[in-house]
Formats: sequence, C-alpha cells, structure tokens
Amino acid sequence: MLDFNLLAQSGAARAGVFETAHGRVETPVFMPVGTQATVKALSPEELKAAGVQIILGNTYHLYLRPGCETIGRFMGLHRFMHWDRPILTDSGGFQVFSLSKLRQLTEAGYAFQSHIDGSRHLLSPEKSIQVQLCLDSDIIMCLDQCLEHPATREQAIAALEITTRWAGRCKTFWRTQTDRRNSLFGIVQGGMFADLRRRSAEEIATIGFPGYAVGGLSVGEPKALMMEMAAHTLPLLPADRPRYVMGVGTPEDLVALVGMGADMFDCVMPTRNARNGQMFTARGTLNIRNARFRDDPEPVDASCGCYTCRHYSLAYLRHLYMAREILAYRLNTIHNIHYYINLVAGMRRAILSGSFDRFQKAFYSVRQSPDR
Amino acid sequence: MLDFNLLAQSGAARAGVFETAHGRVETPVFMPVGTQATVKALSPEELKAAGVQIILGNTYHLYLRPGCETIGRFMGLHRFMHWDRPILTDSGGFQVFSLSKLRQLTEAGYAFQSHIDGSRHLLSPEKSIQVQLCLDSDIIMCLDQCLEHPATREQAIAALEITTRWAGRCKTFWRTQTDRRNSLFGIVQGGMFADLRRRSAEEIATIGFPGYAVGGLSVGEPKALMMEMAAHTLPLLPADRPRYVMGVGTPEDLVALVGMGADMFDCVMPTRNARNGQMFTARGTLNIRNARFRDDPEPVDASCGCYTCRHYSLAYLRHLYMAREILAYRLNTIHNIHYYINLVAGMRRAILSGSFDRFQKAFYSVRQSPDR
Repeated sequence: MLDFNLLAQSGAARAGVFETAHGRVETPVFMPVGTQATVKALSPEELKAAGVQIILGNTYHLYLRPGCETIGRFMGLHRFMHWDRPILTDSGGFQVFSLSKLRQLTEAGYAFQSHIDGSRHLLSPEKSIQVQLCLDSDIIMCLDQCLEHPATREQAIAALEITTRWAGRCKTFWRTQTDRRNSLFGIVQGGMFADLRRRSAEEIATIGFPGYAVGGLSVGEPKALMMEMAAHTLPLLPADRPRYVMGVGTPEDLVALVGMGADMFDCVMPTRNARNGQMFTARGTLNIRNARFRDDPEPVDASCGCYTCRHYSLAYLRHLYMAREILAYRLNTIHNIHYYINLVAGMRRAILSGSFDRFQKAFYSVRQSPDR
Repeated sequence: MLDFNLLAQSGAARAGVFETAHGRVETPVFMPVGTQATVKALSPEELKAAGVQIILGNTYHLYLRPGCETIGRFMGLHRFMHWDRPILTDSGGFQVFSLSKLRQLTEAGYAFQSHIDGSRHLLSPEKSIQVQLCLDSDIIMCLDQCLEHPATREQAIAALEITTRWAGRCKTFWRTQTDRRNSLFGIVQGGMFADLRRRSAEEIATIGFPGYAVGGLSVGEPKALMMEMAAHTLPLLPADRPRYVMGVGTPEDLVALVGMGADMFDCVMPTRNARNGQMFTARGTLNIRNARFRDDPEPVDASCGCYTCRHYSLAYLRHLYMAREILAYRLNTIHNIHYYINLVAGMRRAILSGSFDRFQKAFYSVRQSPDR
C-alpha cells in the first residue's frame, strides 16, 4: 500500500517518498499533532501554507470525544476536520498510559476510565485498529505497551512480549477488513536495553509491516540514553520501509535522528511551546514574554518567510501574549510549525544533494549561539 | 476631513459613504471591536474576507497596555496590528467607568487606577485626544461622562454639562495639533430624559463635529426605553453628518436603529457571543453546545458564504467547542462577524434600492421563527 521509495542517502540520513490514499509524503517529514481533530490554534489552510504534508491524530482523544459514531458519519477524520492530506493516528495506548484513570493492563488490552467523564472502556489491539479504521487515517499504528522510565529488565521483557503478541493481533484483525486503504505500522519496544531493542525489532519485522516505529523513547530518560537507544535501534529496522521515531523532539533531536536514518517524527513541541510563548529560530529559542521585546519592531526571525514574521513585530507578539489574546497562540504556532517544517525540508534538500553532514554542522554551529 | 456623503434615504434609513486617511467607509456600517489591538480570535485577513471596513479600538486598554510609547514607535495602531483599513477609537471614558478601580470624577477628568497593575492615571479630555492621536485612529471620540442606569435628573444634568464642557476642551485641544488626519466626533448624553437629550444634542452640535454619537445607551435600561431614547435623539443630530450609536446591539437593534437613521455601530456581541458558543443566523440564534448538533453534518447556516459555513459542520463546531479548542473561537467568530457585516450590507442595499421597509419586515418575520 505505502510504496516507500528511498531516493537518496547522505551518510545514514535518508530522503524518500511514499504514497497514501490522501496523497504523497516526502521524507524526512515532521507531523504536527492534531490531538482533538485540530492542530491547536491553526486552520487546515494555515497548515498547508506552512508546508505540512501529514498530521497526527490521537486515537484515545477522538475515541472518547466526539467518538467514532460521530466521525463515522463523515466517513472519517478528513472530512470531519476539513483536512484532505494524509493523517497518521496513534494507537491510543500512550494516552491511556499517560492520561486515563484506573488503567489496568491485561493480555486482552487496556481497561481504563475516561479522563473526561470516568466512563469505562477496554482498548484491545482489535479495538484500536477498529477505531483507527473508523477515523480512516492513512497510517494506523499497532497497540503497544509503553514503559515508564526507569523500568526493570523484567518489565521491559514483559512489555516487549505483549507488544509483539498485540502486533500480531493487530495485523490479523487489520487483514480481516475488506476495504484496506490504510497502512499499518509496527512499533518496536524494549525499554533502555539494547539487546531487547534488537529482539523487539526482529520480532516486529518478522510479522512484517509497511513501516516501523521506534516507541518508548522520550519517556523521562536522559537525552544521551534516548539518543543511544535510537542510534542502536534505527539501523535494525528494515531499510526499505519508513522509520518513525514517535513523540520526538527538539530541533536538535530531529537533526540528530535524521542523521541516524529516521524518516518520520511527531511532537507537540512546536505547538505547545508556541502557546507558552517559546519561539524557535535558526539561532536559538526565544521567549516572547521577555521585556526586551517590548518596543522591538523586528520580527521573530528576519529570515523567516512565515505569515507571522512577514507581518508582525516582536513588540506586537509580546503585547498579544501578555494580554492573553487568542491571536497570540495562533501567530506563535504558525511560526513554530513553519520552523519545524522548514527545518525538515532543509534536511531533505541537503540529503538529496549529498550534503547532510555539512547541513548538520551548520545547524549546530548557529543554534549553539546564545538565545536572544 | 470626513466628507460624509448621503447617497440615499428609504424612510428615515440612510445610506452614505465617507472618506478617511485609511480609505472609504460605506454606511450603515458595523465596526467589530478590537479591544487590545486585535479583534479577538481573528486575523486582519479574516476581517477583510468578512467585508469588515472599519474596526474599533479601546483607548483605555491600549493606553494601559502596551501603551503609547510602544504603539507610537509604529506610528500608530495600524502598522502595530497589521490593519490598513480605518480605525475608530473610543475615548476611554466608558472603560474607566466600567473596569477601573477607585475612579474619581472631577472637572479635570477621570482619576483612576489601572485594573491591570493598580497604577494611577488621570484621563482628561486632552489626554484622551492625545492618546487617540498617538494611536493615529481615523475617527477619535470626545471624552464624555457615562451614567449608570437608573440616574436622577440631577445626575443626568451634571453629566450632560460636563460632557459639553469636555467636548469643547477636546475640540480646542485637537485644533492645536498640527497634523490632523483624524476626525473628532462629538457624543450626546442626557440620560433617559428626552429634554436633556435634546439639550445635549444642541450643545454638542453647536460646538460642531464631522460626526455625532449617541452615548449612554445600552447601560442597563429596558430595551423599549433604549429604543425610545434613540428614536428621540437620532433626528436631533445634524442630517449631513454620520450618526453613531455606541455599543449597540443585537441584530434586531441594528435593524431598528438603521430604520431610525443611525449610520454606525459597534458592539462586542458578535465576537463575545461567538466565544460563548452563540451563533447568529437569519432564522435566529443557536447555541453550538446543543446536544442535538452532535452528529449534524449541516453548516450553521446553509445560505451563509463564510469560511466556517463553507467548510465545517455543526457536529465539528460542537466538538471543537466542547473540547475548548482555540479553533472553536476562531470559527464561531468568523461566522458571527460575517453575519453582522452581511446584515448591515443587506440593509445598505435595501436603502439604496428604496426598499428598506420591505427588508425590515422580512428580517423580523424570519428572525421571529423559533431557534433551531
């Protein structure tokens, strides 16, 4: 279905392209997070203007509200939210793990209570796939078991094993569906243990998926350990399929991970940090609340072509933020999404021209300069 | 400066046009409120797409935050907020009256403490004009004294008299300015006393302004009394100048007031109510939270051409609202602003074609149908 095409490599960094029912995606790619059928504060047109190719939806949230019954009447998430480009949905497992109340893990799945109204639900591998099919997302993810950090080797083995069994059930259930326009990705677990990461990668690859994700990173471990695990795991994933590092990360993380061969990313950082006043630029991050911006007529980044930087000053953005105006969240988010999309597009161009190494060095040398 | 041109009358209803330094305004006109240098939730481009010709800024808020020093560096509000069409600013008096702490009225002006940081200020007639000139708004308003309702005749006389004296001081101060691209409007007070309204109108008209506002309405009085006072006062204002009814109102109010000869309006209702989930339509108002919209694939108003109605269902808008998503406030506000602007544009067309009476009857007959 996915038809991943690897176009170029520069070191371990890869540039590729794949097709979905809602259009093509060029990799490496960053997917903004649209938790509740909207990328917070932005319209679909604004996402497109920023060059967003694909967004991520959260199955846990959408399952609870507005629910499959409602979204099903729109034949899926695309028409419901007025977004006609590709969508990837997660399995819901991570949010059960992080948000829900009274969750209980059994072989059947996660029993949990809604964080909204306390209602009781069972998220099984089959249920997760069923909900994602109802959302009609282009890429759907297997239900896996996340681990807190730190976890013991025994806990990591148990999570790995249930993740493998659930991946099999997800694939089996998905194959029973008659109308499969979606691609199902497998997820590798294994905690912070290199040998378990290898075992998980082998087991998931044996089941066989059109794409593979590295799960269970950025769950509280030190940055160096996260990078060590990613560097170890990414080369274990089939080279002819896209590799997706879930829930990561900072601009620095993305550049490092692309350098290790990662193709896909999602993270709330550009959107959430925008709502906290933190703006990303090539030279570093700045906080829009800073008093030194009070009268500053310059844009956030004079070299940035986003709507915000073309029309608004630091002084105005600071004013909107201090006054808690809705437009503040919009304008900040537009800039940060533009920054992330542009960063990844820049990496892709560098890979295609065989100069990723130079790109990486230039990126770090400028970003290391002190914040404004 | 303003060069008001009365193009047509249909009964007492008027269609006109006037020029400002930032472009022409066709009347009757509705001005969305942009309190803190932004019409809440919308971008300037979205306002233009809705056909907004002129917006209102609040002098009290902008004076306190970000302050004249900041906005002055941008040569005024237009460039600061990226809005290149006309702006009208109020005097700040009404917000001192309704928002500030420890306010004290003397002949000099309003002494008050900021509702933001408690700092002490004096808003005199001269200071109000000075701040509005710094904002470089196209239409600036005289400082007047608002009354609570009910007020005694003695209170109304005192307020009327100080409003007349302050109007004289505002005009005198404004004439000392060398670079006058702005137009200064007078404001009629007089409480709920017909003879005092007449006296105030005569005194303000004697001072002489390029436009006149009816102030002190919609301050808690019954709707019938408000309409009685407006109907009494509007014909007393010079017919060759625009007539502005401040801070009003519902769609029904606007249609009634245009029928009495009013030309300009501002009100927070379309924007504030949008953020509370209340949506205006030709058939009546609806609340987007209503459970019957849960799965409704129809737009808010199938006959509406706004961005929201073209792309989003009641079900999606309800979902966004229940999930408290920022996009909910945006989409609701876009629709309501579009509704108000379209309503007033429709009245203008009816006046120009001599059929305002028919417009009015059709409007009320449809709007009186029960809410959805």
